[in-house]
Amino acid sequence: MSTIKDMNADPTQELIADVFDRNCPSRQTVEAVFGKWGILAMVALLEGTFRFNALRRRVDGVSEKMLAQTLHALERDGLVLREAQTTIPPHVEYSLTPLGQRVADKLFAVIEILEGDFDQVKTARARYDEAHATD
Amino acid sequence: MSTIKDMNADPTQELIADVFDRNCPSRQTVEAVFGKWGILAMVALLEGTFRFNALRRRVDGVSEKMLAQTLHALERDGLVLREAQTTIPPHVEYSLTPLGQRVADKLFAVIEILEGDFDQVKTARARYDEAHATD
Repeated sequence: MSTIKDMNADPTQELIADVFDRNCPSRQTVEAVFGKWGILAMVALLEGTFRFNALRRRVDGVSEKMLAQTLHALERDGLVLREAQTTIPPHVEYSLTPLGQRVADKLFAVIEILEGDFDQVKTARARYDEAHATD
Repeated sequence: MSTIKDMNADPTQELIADVFDRNCPSRQTVEAVFGKWGILAMVALLEGTFRFNALRRRVDGVSEKMLAQTLHALERDGLVLREAQTTIPPHVEYSLTPLGQRVADKLFAVIEILEGDFDQVKTARARYDEAHATD
């Protein structure tokens, strides 16, 4: 955590992004990115450009409203690019910006660990549930 | 995304972890890890072992109830270790398990990008808000 600590220790930096601070403007972005639908949408977009409905099918379980809200937040923060195609009928495509790509790569790394080591998680859950069965 | 695709293509694997599937058991873990407080708690624990109240102070803005819920979920999934010390008075310490450490490292990488490039996010926001001011 030296990065964050060093940044906080620098008196010349006034508005340091520090997600641990509830007033930090970066926390809003962290929430948008890390919200369940934000992560899934961004990791899905690693697969390529999607139209809205195709992305909704890919991110199983998301409502139209939640996906629209998620994409607006990610677009506003410059992580997702929304492009209206001048086709007939017109349609809208979503893709990752370069910054969004970098973030999504790291999100995917987390998911890769959790999916790859899900047996460990299942074992831990079973042990926990057994230990807490008499609580 | 080849990893997920390859995994899905393997017919010998029946219960493949696939976060895009709403019924996937790994999605629950992803939600616990990626919930706002999950991320902040795990990244805070990269700094070392914390007692509950110290962790609560570090993760600015979290309520006692939300932090307790978050830590239980992370403990259950084997990402956080809860140790009751046999001191007088007794107290409880939280730390990352090896799996939790690997996940937290990747979460920190996402935060590092967002904090480090927060100027890009701010610029994107200002542009978005200007473009949508007449909506």
